[in-house]
Order: sequence, then structure tokens, then C-alpha cells
Amino acid sequence: MEPDKRDSLIPQESKNYLHTSMVHPLLREWNSVDMFKKSDLIWPIFIHADDENRKQEITLLPENYRIHYDDIVDVLKPLYEKGLRSVMLFAYIPETEKDERGSKALEGPVNKACINIKKELPDLLINCDLCLCPYTSHGHCGVFLENGELDNDETLKILGDIALNLIRDGADIIAPSDCMDCRIGYLKNLFRANKLKTPVMSYGSKFSSGMYGPFRHACGSAPSFGDRKKYQLPLGSKDLALRALERDVEEGADIIMVKPGIFYIDIINEASHRDFKRPICAYQTSGEYAMLYYSAEKGVFDLDAILIENLTAYRRAGCDIILSYFTPRLLDLID
Amino acid sequence: MEPDKRDSLIPQESKNYLHTSMVHPLLREWNSVDMFKKSDLIWPIFIHADDENRKQEITLLPENYRIHYDDIVDVLKPLYEKGLRSVMLFAYIPETEKDERGSKALEGPVNKACINIKKELPDLLINCDLCLCPYTSHGHCGVFLENGELDNDETLKILGDIALNLIRDGADIIAPSDCMDCRIGYLKNLFRANKLKTPVMSYGSKFSSGMYGPFRHACGSAPSFGDRKKYQLPLGSKDLALRALERDVEEGADIIMVKPGIFYIDIINEASHRDFKRPICAYQTSGEYAMLYYSAEKGVFDLDAILIENLTAYRRAGCDIILSYFTPRLLDLID
Amino acid sequence: MEPDKRDSLIPQESKNYLHTSMVHPLLREWNSVDMFKKSDLIWPIFIHADDENRKQEITLLPENYRIHYDDIVDVLKPLYEKGLRSVMLFAYIPETEKDERGSKALEGPVNKACINIKKELPDLLINCDLCLCPYTSHGHCGVFLENGELDNDETLKILGDIALNLIRDGADIIAPSDCMDCRIGYLKNLFRANKLKTPVMSYGSKFSSGMYGPFRHACGSAPSFGDRKKYQLPLGSKDLALRALERDVEEGADIIMVKPGIFYIDIINEASHRDFKRPICAYQTSGEYAMLYYSAEKGVFDLDAILIENLTAYRRAGCDIILSYFTPRLLDLID
Amino acid sequence: MEPDKRDSLIPQESKNYLHTSMVHPLLREWNSVDMFKKSDLIWPIFIHADDENRKQEITLLPENYRIHYDDIVDVLKPLYEKGLRSVMLFAYIPETEKDERGSKALEGPVNKACINIKKELPDLLINCDLCLCPYTSHGHCGVFLENGELDNDETLKILGDIALNLIRDGADIIAPSDCMDCRIGYLKNLFRANKLKTPVMSYGSKFSSGMYGPFRHACGSAPSFGDRKKYQLPLGSKDLALRALERDVEEGADIIMVKPGIFYIDIINEASHRDFKRPICAYQTSGEYAMLYYSAEKGVFDLDAILIENLTAYRRAGCDIILSYFTPRLLDLID
Amino acid sequence: MEPDKRDSLIPQESKNYLHTSMVHPLLREWNSVDMFKKSDLIWPIFIHADDENRKQEITLLPENYRIHYDDIVDVLKPLYEKGLRSVMLFAYIPETEKDERGSKALEGPVNKACINIKKELPDLLINCDLCLCPYTSHGHCGVFLENGELDNDETLKILGDIALNLIRDGADIIAPSDCMDCRIGYLKNLFRANKLKTPVMSYGSKFSSGMYGPFRHACGSAPSFGDRKKYQLPLGSKDLALRALERDVEEGADIIMVKPGIFYIDIINEASHRDFKRPICAYQTSGEYAMLYYSAEKGVFDLDAILIENLTAYRRAGCDIILSYFTPRLLDLID
Amino acid sequence: MEPDKRDSLIPQESKNYLHTSMVHPLLREWNSVDMFKKSDLIWPIFIHADDENRKQEITLLPENYRIHYDDIVDVLKPLYEKGLRSVMLFAYIPETEKDERGSKALEGPVNKACINIKKELPDLLINCDLCLCPYTSHGHCGVFLENGELDNDETLKILGDIALNLIRDGADIIAPSDCMDCRIGYLKNLFRANKLKTPVMSYGSKFSSGMYGPFRHACGSAPSFGDRKKYQLPLGSKDLALRALERDVEEGADIIMVKPGIFYIDIINEASHRDFKRPICAYQTSGEYAMLYYSAEKGVFDLDAILIENLTAYRRAGCDIILSYFTPRLLDLID
Ligand SMILES: [Zn+2]
Ligand SMILES: [Zn+2]
Ligand SMILES: [Zn+2]
Ligand SMILES: [Zn+2]
Ligand SMILES: [Zn+2]
Ligand SMILES: [Zn+2]
Repeated sequence: MEPDKRDSLIPQESKNYLHTSMVHPLLREWNSVDMFKKSDLIWPIFIHADDENRKQEITLLPENYRIHYDDIVDVLKPLYEKGLRSVMLFAYIPETEKDERGSKALEGPVNKACINIKKELPDLLINCDLCLCPYTSHGHCGVFLENGELDNDETLKILGDIALNLIRDGADIIAPSDCMDCRIGYLKNLFRANKLKTPVMSYGSKFSSGMYGPFRHACGSAPSFGDRKKYQLPLGSKDLALRALERDVEEGADIIMVKPGIFYIDIINEASHRDFKRPICAYQTSGEYAMLYYSAEKGVFDLDAILIENLTAYRRAGCDIILSYFTPRLLDLID
Repeated sequence: MEPDKRDSLIPQESKNYLHTSMVHPLLREWNSVDMFKKSDLIWPIFIHADDENRKQEITLLPENYRIHYDDIVDVLKPLYEKGLRSVMLFAYIPETEKDERGSKALEGPVNKACINIKKELPDLLINCDLCLCPYTSHGHCGVFLENGELDNDETLKILGDIALNLIRDGADIIAPSDCMDCRIGYLKNLFRANKLKTPVMSYGSKFSSGMYGPFRHACGSAPSFGDRKKYQLPLGSKDLALRALERDVEEGADIIMVKPGIFYIDIINEASHRDFKRPICAYQTSGEYAMLYYSAEKGVFDLDAILIENLTAYRRAGCDIILSYFTPRLLDLID
Repeated sequence: MEPDKRDSLIPQESKNYLHTSMVHPLLREWNSVDMFKKSDLIWPIFIHADDENRKQEITLLPENYRIHYDDIVDVLKPLYEKGLRSVMLFAYIPETEKDERGSKALEGPVNKACINIKKELPDLLINCDLCLCPYTSHGHCGVFLENGELDNDETLKILGDIALNLIRDGADIIAPSDCMDCRIGYLKNLFRANKLKTPVMSYGSKFSSGMYGPFRHACGSAPSFGDRKKYQLPLGSKDLALRALERDVEEGADIIMVKPGIFYIDIINEASHRDFKRPICAYQTSGEYAMLYYSAEKGVFDLDAILIENLTAYRRAGCDIILSYFTPRLLDLID
Repeated sequence: MEPDKRDSLIPQESKNYLHTSMVHPLLREWNSVDMFKKSDLIWPIFIHADDENRKQEITLLPENYRIHYDDIVDVLKPLYEKGLRSVMLFAYIPETEKDERGSKALEGPVNKACINIKKELPDLLINCDLCLCPYTSHGHCGVFLENGELDNDETLKILGDIALNLIRDGADIIAPSDCMDCRIGYLKNLFRANKLKTPVMSYGSKFSSGMYGPFRHACGSAPSFGDRKKYQLPLGSKDLALRALERDVEEGADIIMVKPGIFYIDIINEASHRDFKRPICAYQTSGEYAMLYYSAEKGVFDLDAILIENLTAYRRAGCDIILSYFTPRLLDLID
Repeated sequence: MEPDKRDSLIPQESKNYLHTSMVHPLLREWNSVDMFKKSDLIWPIFIHADDENRKQEITLLPENYRIHYDDIVDVLKPLYEKGLRSVMLFAYIPETEKDERGSKALEGPVNKACINIKKELPDLLINCDLCLCPYTSHGHCGVFLENGELDNDETLKILGDIALNLIRDGADIIAPSDCMDCRIGYLKNLFRANKLKTPVMSYGSKFSSGMYGPFRHACGSAPSFGDRKKYQLPLGSKDLALRALERDVEEGADIIMVKPGIFYIDIINEASHRDFKRPICAYQTSGEYAMLYYSAEKGVFDLDAILIENLTAYRRAGCDIILSYFTPRLLDLID
Repeated sequence: MEPDKRDSLIPQESKNYLHTSMVHPLLREWNSVDMFKKSDLIWPIFIHADDENRKQEITLLPENYRIHYDDIVDVLKPLYEKGLRSVMLFAYIPETEKDERGSKALEGPVNKACINIKKELPDLLINCDLCLCPYTSHGHCGVFLENGELDNDETLKILGDIALNLIRDGADIIAPSDCMDCRIGYLKNLFRANKLKTPVMSYGSKFSSGMYGPFRHACGSAPSFGDRKKYQLPLGSKDLALRALERDVEEGADIIMVKPGIFYIDIINEASHRDFKRPICAYQTSGEYAMLYYSAEKGVFDLDAILIENLTAYRRAGCDIILSYFTPRLLDLID
């Protein structure tokens, strides 16, 4: 083919030449979403009450620890000074304190941590996870009927009682992760009946994922029988995920969450295109943390670079807030 | 709060009770997307011509190898019998054969592999990667003007010449990964001018990602200076990604690709909501492969389970075809 | 007109040359929807209790039979082994057992079939049709007020009582085909009040069609007076069809159906474009079965080929699940 | 469950009670689409030039005949008086007159029929099918390159020459059914260059269907080798169907067609939702005709009733005009 | 009305109680858009070449000055250190240097400023305003035909020549403010023909506003006769504003602008809802600057607070970048 | 670049040449929205009861005065003759008459003004502002619980009692500006329970703005401690603004308001795109009035011209009615 013939085959539509929007770093930045600010980070922490073993390593969650409720302020203060503004508290209790109804949740280590934090760091926003699984002997997120099915309504009532105590002790936001039906509506109704204005962050779209391994070590919350497929979402179902988010919005959720983040960025994207009009939070789960951490260690990529790429993805998809085990690292990485 | 008071706070909207759609495995399946079929998989392979070292290990890409063009049929035949229907061929040549214009690409190992495959496995669909970076001494995807900027039009012409040779030797689909502006339009115009109906698979949305490490080992295509930020997409720019996809569709792409898959599932999702009306392909990149492989090895999760969860995400987001280094494993995993 | 003049009249827009997307079978497949999987099929079966005549031929429904409740497991077992995962049970009772309220429905042959199937094939998902017409002396789907109009609320209560018995006996899904107003809401409310999580498949869009002839032979359910135009949808009304589907979704239907499939593919298509977020089922009715069967017998087309073309249409329009009398044939035809 | 308890479970949303919109025939009509008018019908006719056998029966197309060009006016006149306003003319020629390029098409029986009709029934709108397959020895719709592939551009030129002759002889609309790429653009450009304002009806969405059996008998146009899968649409591809329609609209088609109608009502529906701004025509193909005819004969349904139901479906989906072999029957059925 | 009666009138929908989303500062922040970053600011500066009067006050634009091209680097350096990353350069020349075609624009003070800045601050992104009005004796933005109408095409050519010189001297982005038709397409075509990748920022939606008073003092660009209503947008026309933006996007604009910002926040909002996929810039015009400055001086509000409120509005409406005379103040105000 | 080369770069798309729609004043008008009519204006007035000082100047609100309830008719009559059709009444009472519950609001100066106006100008539509802040000793808009939080429900009841008295005395529309949750629903329920059909204008989207300074002088309503950030909207939150508007619409608001207008034109625009189906009112606040007034005085722009430009913006964004302190001036300006 002759050179001049080839010239005539080159497209002439100026708008299709995109490199002009990428020639300068500032242009690339202007065409991109902004990174999370420090105040958009929530650090998930596991609280325990074991006076003998106060800083507990967590299997597959390197550089993260279970923290004693009386040490939590010392851990948080330096991070608060770096810009940390919000935490999510989970509990860890020994098997011996568990029962079928998770009774220990009414007065557990998280209650004590809330009291301690509110006293010393009153401006730090405390999110409290709300679920039975760290407290039940069977490790499930609800209580059961005699026929082996979940008793949805009874579970709602227990969750409500736990939530009221957490609020009494200082919780600013209640974040139910239990996946029972209509828990948002119940909690909002309950709080209002008690003249409380505590917001609710809904784990609205929580999948039955393989990404929770290290978390279950951290919380000691693996189910002792069966699985959670009847109350956590099927992996392939965009429909049920969106129905769950819409349900929670309709029942009054103040913030909605997608969990895990990775593999579910399409769900964040779908949520951001809907008219939900409240912040969308992603949970960068323990499996994601471990996966990025160990792969970087292996040399697959640079940890800080891939972490920024990952967070960029959450922002691009429409995420407002992020729950991340990397929060202490990010407080240094984000300026 | 009295028990009966609590009962009155439980929401009564039947449609908000979602567990009914999750009680039976078949219901969960009916509410979910289907898995990829075997014929939706494309296996990326690296072809070389080194007679001394015919099965070459690839750093950070365990269980994958660079394959000699005369061994390729032996490698493919058993996989073809298991259901493999499509491959994507990349080249690896020694530094000594490279020059500024990537001249070796006109008659390289991929050409020979095409001839071999077409002779023995005529039904296997051959996708050929089209780029200069495996062949240029500087490792960039285009040729340069004297001022150090990419010469977009000249690069298009070189790519076109390479493509015509690949088609002559048996390529069924040409897949330009170079990110030059308007390459799709040029190639489609060129092919039609030559009475060819070869389809074009556009790497339409290709990000400047940290996920390409092992690939660059495999292809020997790391740039010797600078980076690719002026022609690969900025990580945070959904806008430029969609403009690039729309441009390629408008110029006649037969198939469009999002690369990498992971972290960019929102882009697949956006593409699937647009009216592009051609198959969407995701590239599960080398970094994703290594990350899943090594993390499973570390015990973070079960490899097969997480692989299915990952592929499920691609499907749920709207992906039709997948390029995966796990293809041989998937031929066993998918029934 | 001179040859060169004609050349200049040929369009030059590459994207308008579509044959490139059709040159290879794999490309045609990638541009097409996938076929139903075996687990997407539901086989409709008619159950009776006549010990004298256990395998009953059905007029105009060749190769289908009414089956005795004690034979049903023997019929299903070999199909289950081929991949059958779901059935829909209908009843046939003699005229002598019918009355104005369809009382026999509370304890009929379908109840016994459920018990038998659950015992031997516990994983097979049992859908039970819910309607009065096979049991009423007048052959209508509801009971009447003295003024000759349907008593909608009273019918709902009777249907609810029948449904509770079916669930007790093993029904996994209740599928009301009666077309009463607000039956989905009533059933969902009723089930929740009874702590049941049984899903409901709504015959949401059921037209007053000419395609039900052979079915009425099978069920013995032709109305003895009048027609069903006051409760089945007018043939030309897309508006009422969509209002009915939206109503059922709002009332909590877990699965929605369009019936018949043929001639109503536009309704399936409309439904799939709405944000219903639950599986869409099509009923390939008895008239469709007979029409394809006898036309193929006449030589108009090849039965297997046209059956695949027909199912492809349902999939292309957005159908997730299919009720088909061809199910046994399809278990062989679909791989 | 107590009666009063059941009452409280009945939904109270007035808007969900739809029977109120169906109680009176006029209400059902007001909620429905209108039927085709007689002037919306196009009758497809096969024209031959065999003086020995002037009224030829057509296998599997009962009550339809191939008609001699000199008999056509006699056949049309009584129908014209009943309201027929449009026909589509196809050709039938003996094998001995066929060649590789379909040369007979330039001066065939359709040309003579056009002259005859225009003389006697000048107001009858004549659509002329435009394709090579009734005239080529190989039975394909285009001519071939030496490599066995279709020569798209050469075919366009031949089609253009045929079209110019048909217009010269009286054709009012040219309807290319050949499925070559960009034929609409070529014909529109050609007509404008010849100062002609003849409209083009595009067979825009023509599937590779099993519904064309009787037609191929009628036209003698079955391909002698291979199939049409490289130029007729894959059955499962909504994407390619819509791309083809959009292409034809963009190239200036005056009317667009979906063929076959049955099984492709979703495509009509999709087309009607797009902003095509020209009439949509459905082709009720020969297979559909035979299927309805023979099934009614067998007793599956009443022919007139099912025919009305079928046409209602086309209208409901958005169809403006219909090509039907039932046209003579419909001229009596439609008032 | 009795107290208990009143209680029953209080709405019970939890989702309607919004104060829960406002109880904590972090919740209010999470529910709000982020503020501009420093790198999102562009500082507009007026450049002159009068060696006698190097720092010139500007009427009604307090704290802003016209700057000599040899002083510009000294002015910019300290701001660059505070985070300034981008400027927009305008020219001021004496009346004596003006002519009908604005010839001085080809080699004016802005050219010299570009050269100086690029030498000392190569990373600072230079936007150059492109218009004739500061250079023409008649003060209009284009040249005229003999009949007194604008000569659109001739103006395009002059603008193109000026732009090429600015790029030669260091301009990173060309920002045409002239409002001629199709200037974006012309400039993009021109730049590509010259192998340039300079981006274009379109003053896409520029209204014929009363907010430009101080600017005309700064530039000396008030028209000597007539007004600009034939080429700047009518104040009340959302339609023409959006058609202009869409036109510029279609012609390849890299960035689009709305000017003025205030009173036109609805246009920014409309633009952000369209799928323009490029950054949206607002011009906080000179009138806005003066209005806020003098009103704060009068005590109507606090300047910093109202400035943040104003910028928040631009962000909330969808603005990515802002041109503001307050930029030096904002570099201190934004952290 | 040669002249002819430049000609070929000029875009040829006729639709992109927009000046044709702007050449004639009538064309510009046809492309623009209409101005408000006089009957679309509402004049806000402050009413007091101080017999000693009957015409009170208001700091920073030049040409506006607090008016004695017995002078109000004299003030309104000449304006009514010019076309004024609606007023909004606010109260001013001395500090000595205020208490914690704003008891004076039950029988204050506004009640007397209503009686006077209704007697003399019965056709003038009276809107009465409904809030506690002009009457409470703490200056907040609600009453407090012991824990320092607002008592939402108790405030609703007080507001309801005040509203009933205003209606008794002649108020035509009640306009609650208090921002309590669910006040619209409560008032609508309350009015219906009292057989009243008084419409409610909701301050649905009222931001915590810096634009209320002069108003607080006028009303004496600045809070004595804290701020209103827990009940007025965060400046950056489009989401909460829209949730509030949607809530009020859902609860039955007859008219909805956005306040302030300036900086919030995007919210008006968003509201006008939603399907609210009731008039949208903008409040051109006291800060806007002062800002335009003093800036024009300074010479930044002409007051009448900029006022028309500002009102044009409200109309263009979708505003139906406007509350403006400029109303007397506008009665002269609008013809
Ligand atoms: Zn749990
Ligand atoms: Zn490359
Ligand atoms: Zn029935
Ligand atoms: Zn043909
Ligand atoms: Zn200008
Ligand atoms: Zn107030």
C-alpha cells in the first residue's frame, strides 16, 4: 500500500484524539476523581477484655492487632493527631463467654471502649458494629427458631437492645452487619421512639464472599455449622444487592455500605448512579488487606502505589467513605 | 421498652423481606448471573523463537511459560480438547533484535505461531496482540518525533503493516493494545481497503496501572525511559475511559476491552449500561493472576473459590468474554 | 453510470460494515446471548389420583401425560439424573369431586405428590400452581358473589389456605395463576405471619390468550360459562400488563412470569428493561408446544432447530427461567 | 388462622386493584392498541414467466400461488377493491436462467409485472424485493471473490443496477433483502445521483432463521452450498440486530423491517423504543403462515382468533406495517 | 385539640427524619461535596508591556493588578510555593497599538510572559486566553465584513494564527473566549495538522452578562459600538447554552467553561448531568469578585465565609476547576 | 500554513453554527425563558407593635422598614394598585416579650396585621412565616429537651397551635421556616383534622447560609448560643437538600421553596427536573438584596440590569414564584 493511500485512511475527527487531554500532569488530575481525604477514612478495630494478653496479633492480618479496651485511647491518640476522625469498633470475646443469644453483647468490651474514647477523644466519631456473631456460641448473626430457621423478628429485638446500650455508652453511629431483613427500619423506629438521633450505617449490600477469612480470625466469628448463604447475598446477584440497598434507604439508613469493596465495585457504581442521596461507604475487607499486603511483599507490585490505585477505583466508582485496615498507613500516605 | 411496644416497631412491608429469595440454592442461582462458558475464555500466550530454551519460566507468573512457536500446537491441542476455543498471542524477542521502529514485528515469532496453529487447529480463534513495545528498543508502544513526542500517525501506519502480515499468516482477530489515538478507525479503514473482514478487538479502556508487572517480564516490554502516562489512561478518570471506548465503538471496533479487570469493574459496568452493542472483554491481568495465586498460597483464601468469585464479578458487571492466565485451570473448573 | 462513479457512492464508515462481527462461529456466539442452562428449566406436570388409569394421554399435548401421584417419583428420577432441577405441579380431578369453592384443593393429588417427591428427591425444587379452576365446578379461577361478580377477597383467603397446606406438604415455591387482584401481597403477608419464607412466583402478566387449549384438556379447567376477560389481560394492553407486573413486584413477588411466551416476547423485553430485580420466567404454553410439534411433523421446520430458535428468543428478550412442556426433550438437547 | 386475622392481611392499596380497568369491553379496548388498518398490509407475491403453468401451487404455503406476470392484474384487482393498497413482488425463474451474478434480475418477470400493474392499478404501491438469490445459480444473495468470500462492493453495484431498472419499470419502493453491508447508503447515494426520490425499505434486522422454508420453495432460492450465517443475523444477537437497524437508519432508510416477526417481537419492541423516526415493518414469514395454518387445521386453536392475537402482538410491540401471506384473508377479517 | 390527638398526627416514616444525618460535623461533611483543592484553581492575570508603570491598579478590581511581563515570574514564584499550579493570561495593550484585525495579538505581552514563565516555572500550567477584543480598535471579538456583520471564518483563521504563536512561546492550553461559531473544531483541526497536542479549553457557555465591568477595565476591551448580543448567549436561554456546550464537546474541546459562574449555576448543574466527560470550569468573574469584596467590606457578610459558601456552590453543582481572582487569598484559605 | 489549507480545517456541520439563532432580538427572546409576572412576586415584610417607633429602619436592608401592624394597609394599598398580589409576614417583638417556648407567637403582631389586611385588601394573598425564632429568648427555631437537643415533636405541636391561630386571623398560606423534621406532614394532618384547607408552603431546602445577616437584624432572631447547623442544611449537601424537598412533597407540601436563591440555583434546577408537580419558590434573601444594592452603588454594575439578570436566572433554572425585598422596585421594572 502506498504511503499517500495510507494517509487518507487516518481518521480526521479531532474529538477522537484524546492524548491532548493527557499531556500534562494537571490535565490528568483535572480529568480524574479526587483521592479520599483523611476524614473520609474509618479504621476498623477489634476490642477485647483479656487483661493477660493486651496486644494480640491477628492471623493473616499483619500490622493489625486486637486491642484491650483500656489501651484503645493510647492507640488512637497519635492517629487522631495525624488526622484520624472515625473508627469502627468490633468485639472479640472468648468462647466461654458466648451463648445462643449472644447475651454478652449487651455489656461487652466495646461498651467499655466507647466510654473510654468519648472521655478522652470526644470529637472522634465512633461507629459500632452491630451483630451477634462475635458473641454467639454458634457463630451465626441471628438467633434460631426451633425448626432451624433464623428468627428474624426476635433477632431484631436483641440487636435493638444492644444498640441502645452502645448509644448510652457513646456510640455515634450504629452499623448493623447482621443482614437480617428490615433491621434498618426497626432500629430507626426504635431510636426515634427513644428520642435518639443516632444515625444508622447500613451494611446494605453484604455478599457471601471468600474475602472474610482474616476477619473471622480477628473476631472469632466463624459459624460453627452451615454457612451464611441464606442471609448474606449470593455472589452473582446484582438484583438482590440493589434490592437490599433500596430497602435500607427506604427504611431510613443514613449511610449505606458495600462489602467487600473489591470484586463489587460494580455495585458501588450502580449505587452511585441511583438517587440514594446518602454517603456510600466501601469496606476494604480483611481479605483485600491481606491480598495486597502479601502480594506486595512477594514483589508483584509496590504496596503504596497499588493501594492508591485501589482507593482511586473506589472513588471513581462513587464511594464517599472507606473502611480500611490500611488507615494508619493512609494517614501518612494521604496529604 | 416493653415487648409489645417493640413488636409495633417492626416494619411490615412484605417486599422488604428478601430472605425468601435466598432460601434455596436454585433460587440463589436464578437471582444470579451465569458463569462464563469455556468458549468465553481467551488464553494469553507468549511466543518466542529461541531454539535453545524452548519452555521459559516467567518471573511472577507461576505455571505460565513462554512457548516456542514450534511447540505451540502441542501445548494447545490438549487444551483444545478440553474446550479451549480462543487464544491471544504476544511476542517475546531478544533485546538484540529490537530497534526504534520495532521492525521485527513484521515477521516475528507470532507470525510463525499463527501459521502453525492454523494448520493444525483451524477452528481455534486466533487473536493477535498488536503493539510495538515488545519489539522496540525503547520499549514504548509507538515511534517518536524528533521533539520526543509520540508520532501518532506514523505509528498507525507501522501497526497497520504489521496487522496485514498477521492476517496473511492466519490471525482471526487483531487486538491493538498500543493506545495510539484513532488506531481502530485506521485499521478498519485499512482492512476494508484490502477487502479483508478481519474483526478488531479494541483495548479501548486501558489504564496506566500497577498490575502489569509480570506481563512486562513475560514480554520484555518495560519502557527504557519515562512512563506511559501520556497514552495509557489516568487511573482516576472514568471520563477518559468512556470517551476512549465511545471513540473506538464509533470507529468500528468489533469487540471492546477493559484492562485491567480488577479495580476497573466499574468501567465494565458503565460500558455494559451504554448502548455499545458489541461484546465486552475483560483482561484479568498478570498482576491479578499473581495476586490471587500468591495470596491463596499464603492461605488468605481458597484459590478456586476466589477465582469463581472474581469471574462472577466480571459477569455481574456485564462482561461477555475474559482474557485470563488461569484459562487452563478454568477449563477444568468450569463444567 | 460509469464504474468509478459507482465506487464513490459506496459508504466509507467502517463501523457500518457489520459482517466482520459475523465471520467466525465464535464471534457470532460472543455477540449472542447464552442458551438456558438445564437448571433454568421448569417442567409442568399434571397430577391425578385415579388408580384405574395411571398414565393418561392429553388431547393435543403429544408425549405429555397426566401422572398419578404415586408414579411421579418414578417419572422424575431419570430426568433428575439428566439435570432436571425444578417442576411445576398442576392438578387434575374428576368433575364429581368439584364444587363451587374448589374445596378439594385443600387436600388434593398435588399435596400427595409433594410429600412423595420431597421424600425421594429432596433437592428438586417444587413449584406448585395455585388456582381454583382445576377444582371448581364452574371452572373459573375465583369464587363468586351473589351478583355474579368475582369475590376477590374471599378468593384470596381460599387461595391462602390452599397455599399453607401445599407448603406444609413440601412446596418450595407457590405460583398463583388465578389473576385475582393483590394476591401476591396477601400471600406474602400470610406467609410472614406464619413465620414462613416460602417464595412466590407471580403469574404477573397473564393474557386472555388462545394458546391455552391443550392445557384446559390437561387440567379439565375450561370455564363452564363466560370467559376470563375480566381477570386475564386484554391481548393488546401493554399498559395493563406492565401495571400488573409492577404491582406484583411492589407487593413482594420473588419471581415474575409472562404467559404465554410467544406473541408476548415484547412484554418480556419490556420487563427486562425495567428495574424489577428478580428473575423473569416465561411460560411456553401448551398451544405453543402443540403448534411447534405439529408444524415440525408437517415439515415446516426441524423441531429441534426451531425449539432452539424459540428459546433463544426468550433469552434474548431477557428471560431467566422457562416453563416448558419440552423439558424432557431439552434435557437431551442442551448440553 | 382466624378469619379476622386474614382480613388484616389483604393489601389496601387502591391503585393495585386492576380489575376495575377490565370490567367493560370498552375499557379493555381503551387500554389496548388498535388493530392494523387494511392500508397497513403488504401482500407478498411471487411472479414467474412460465406460460405453460400459470397458477403454480407452493409447497407448504397453502392458498398461496406463484402468479404469471400477465395474470397479476387480474389477481390484484378484486383485492384492490377490498382495500389492498400495497404488494411486495418476488421473482421465480427456472434454474436454467440462473448464473453466478444473477444477470436475469436486470430484466426478469418482476419488471414485466411492474409495468402491468402500473398501467392498470397506478395507485397500488409496488414494493420490489431486491436480492440476487432468486437469480443466482449458487442461491446466495451476493457474488463471490475468488477466495470464496462475498464481494460486498461488487454486489452493491449489481443490486444498484437492478434497482434502477425496477424503478424505471414502475417500482415505488425498493426493498433490499440481501443483507450486504451498507447497501442502504449505496442505494440512497445512487438514487440521488440519478435524481430519483424512490424510498428504500430496509430489511434491517433479518435473522438467519428456520422460518424461511416455504419461502425458499416459492422463490427457488435455497443456497446450493453453505448457509447465510455470515450475512444474516445470528439468532441470539440483539446487539447486531440493533446495530444493523441503526446503521440502515443512519444511511437513510425510509422504512425499516424486522424479519421474521415471530420470535423477534422483542426486536420490534426495541426498535420502537429507539428514536428511529420512520415506520417499522414486520414480515410475518412463510414459516409463521404455515405454522398457524396447519396448527389451526389440527385443532390447536381457531385460525382467525389466533391470527388477530398474533397481529395484535405486532402492533403492541410497535409495528406500523405488516407483510403477511394472510393478507387476502385479513382483507375480510379486518373491518 | 387534645394532646394525645396531636401525637397521632405526627408522621412515623423514619426515613423522613433527616436530622440524624446532621448531628455530627463529620456526618455533615460526609453528606457534602469536597472543597476545591489548590490545584483546581486558575488565577487570571493581566499582562502589559508598559515599562513606565509596571504595577497597575485596576478599577473595581481591588488587590488585583496588571503586571509587566518581566515581573510576572516574581509575582508567581511565592504563589507557586503556596500551591498555585495554573494561571490564565490576558493581555492589556494601549489604544495606540490596536487596529481593526488585532494584529498586535500575534506578538504581544502575553507571548513574552509565556516565555518568561516557562523558563522559570516549567511545571506551572499556562492557559492563554484567545480573543481579539483586547487588541482590536473596535473592541469586538472578531473582524467584520463590509456589511457590518462578523466574518466568522476569517476570525477563525486569525485566532488560529495567534494560537500557534502562543503555543510556540509556551502556552499549555488555549482558551478561546471569542464566541465565534465552530472555533473549537477549527483550532483542534489546526493543531493536529501541525502535530501539536495542545488542549483547548472552551468558553462554551458565555453569557452576555452585566458581570464583566471590572474585567473590561482590566483588559481595555469594552466594545466601541454596539454590544455582543449576537455572539454572546442571551441571558435567559438554557437551550442555546447547552447547544453551544454540546457543539464544543462534539468538536473536541478538552475542558468546557461556564461564564459567569454566579447566576449560571443551573447551567453548570445541567452540564454536569450531561455525559460530557471532560472537566467543567467556572469563571468567577470580575463582577462577582467586586460584589463579594465590597459587600463584605460593607458588613453584609464575612468575606472568607461567603467565599467558601460560593465555591461550595460551584462544587455542589458539578464544577471541577475554577478561575478566580481570589486565587491568592484561596491559597491561604484552602488547606 | 497556507490560506487554502486553513479553509479545509473549518468545520462544515451546519448544525454547529449557532449565531443564526441569535441575529434578531425576537429570535433571542424566542430562545429564552419569560420574566416573572407581577403576580409571581411575594414581598416579605416585618411587622411590629411598637407604637413609639412606627417606621423602623433595618440595618443593612436599605429602603426596607419594619412596619407597625396598624400601618400595614397604608403601605400595601399603593403597591396593590401597582400589581402586588402577595406578601409574606414576619414578626419583630422586643426581647422582653420573648420566652423559651416563644409563647408570644400565639397572639403577636402578625395576627393583628392579618386581621387588618384581610379587612381592607381581602384579595391580597397572605403568606405567614411560621417559626419560633423571632419569639424565643434563645433565638432558636425549636424548643429543647433537657439534654440540650431539640425536642422535635414538642416543637411541631407548638407550631401547629400558632398556625391554627394565624389561619383563624386571616392567613391564606402557612410557610414553616423552622426546619423541624416532618413539620409538613404534621401541619397537613392537623389542618385536615380541623377541617381546614389552608395550603402549606415548605421552606423545603433551607441552607445554613451566610446570606441571612440583614434578616436577623430585621427579625431580631439571631441565636443566642450555638448555630443552626443541626437543622439547617449543610452548604455542600445537594443530597440532603433533595431528600428534604422530596420528604416535604411526600408529606403534602403545596408549594416548595429553595432558600437562599443565589448560590443555590443548582438546587432550583434539580427540583425543576424532578416530578414535584407543585410551584417552586425562591427566596432572594436579605444578603442578596444588600449585596446587589451596595455593589451597584459602588459602580460594579447597573442595579436594574443586574436585577433582571438575576431574576432571569431564577426563571431559567425553573422557579415559578419569587420572594424578594426588591418587590416594590420590581413592580415598576416589570411591565
Ligand atoms: Zn455477623
Ligand atoms: Zn505496547
Ligand atoms: Zn385458573
Ligand atoms: Zn437473498
Ligand atoms: Zn473577546
Ligand atoms: Zn426560625
